[in-house]
Amino acid sequence: MISGRGSNMIALADAVEQERIPGAEIALVMSDQPGAAGLLRAAERGLKVLVIERGDRTREEHEQEIVAALVEGQIDLVCLAGYMRLLSGYFIDAYRGRILNIHPSLLPAFPGLAAQRQALEHGAKWSGCTVHFVDETLDGGPIIAQSIVPVWEEDTEETLSERILEQEHLLYPKAVAQIVRGEYEVLGRRVLNSQ
Amino acid sequence: MISGRGSNMIALADAVEQERIPGAEIALVMSDQPGAAGLLRAAERGLKVLVIERGDRTREEHEQEIVAALVEGQIDLVCLAGYMRLLSGYFIDAYRGRILNIHPSLLPAFPGLAAQRQALEHGAKWSGCTVHFVDETLDGGPIIAQSIVPVWEEDTEETLSERILEQEHLLYPKAVAQIVRGEYEVLGRRVLNSQ
Repeated sequence: MISGRGSNMIALADAVEQERIPGAEIALVMSDQPGAAGLLRAAERGLKVLVIERGDRTREEHEQEIVAALVEGQIDLVCLAGYMRLLSGYFIDAYRGRILNIHPSLLPAFPGLAAQRQALEHGAKWSGCTVHFVDETLDGGPIIAQSIVPVWEEDTEETLSERILEQEHLLYPKAVAQIVRGEYEVLGRRVLNSQ
Repeated sequence: MISGRGSNMIALADAVEQERIPGAEIALVMSDQPGAAGLLRAAERGLKVLVIERGDRTREEHEQEIVAALVEGQIDLVCLAGYMRLLSGYFIDAYRGRILNIHPSLLPAFPGLAAQRQALEHGAKWSGCTVHFVDETLDGGPIIAQSIVPVWEEDTEETLSERILEQEHLLYPKAVAQIVRGEYEVLGRRVLNSQ
């Protein structure tokens, strides 16, 4: 699920194509934004794309259509990749434990929007990215994987974001592969490798 | 300023002895706890030690005696090393910008007590330690330096604390040396190297 350029979606598609996520196929690329640049890139690769706009509907009405499409497509795992809407309890319940997100900080530091700018302005010396299960909290679900990225003094929001993004593209496919293999267990908030 | 074994105080004393903090001398090791193990270790090294107990006094009364001792000792820089009391605005004002602390997490993640256990229970994959200026917030002052430490699945609070502590002992002397050299400027919350 994307809202923009979908670079993490492309990273996942590359990984599937190169068989780095055994057993996975990308059944659907869904966007709430018809102008999302990632849609074109997905379509060019032959991936099935779908736009479901929010329009004037309530969040739940919007999500009902999305969840119906996911169920119809027999989607097992939902990967948010720059999807810029919060999911309601309805959506999360429907796919409980099967929705992943990637966030450009070392959570629990800097949740929410503009995480890279938050890290810079806070004066953090290290940041990174986090793949986590999505629950009702803002970027607060159990953490599957994290990568670290140094913050340089000369960094701007753009250079830091770029450096973190490189790690996101490596981390997300690895984390998805672990979940697809089923080699994990969730103990409290801890996601452990059960291999 | 210590309250316990003072291992970070010893790390600073080692660094001073080995001239890794040019221009610094440890003028005083102060503890609020007469039984702090670090006092004995400091005295064995020939460092001047002082116990100032809180007793039945208010926090401010206690701090007035401490600040008076620091002023009398011509102390320029106060390094908290496992000092287990919050400082009031009175103390902080008296040494504004000249009080450092080391905290066993990558702040702003996991402030407060038992930061290592917090990191474990949160399921973080990376933690670390942070040297920061002390202000009125809980472990929230501007960050001078941070080191990263991986969290292993098999970690207990003890093993993680031990691994972070090794990094603390390396980081704190480096950060103190930077401050003693005066090679920094604070821009907003960012502590930049001004060399």
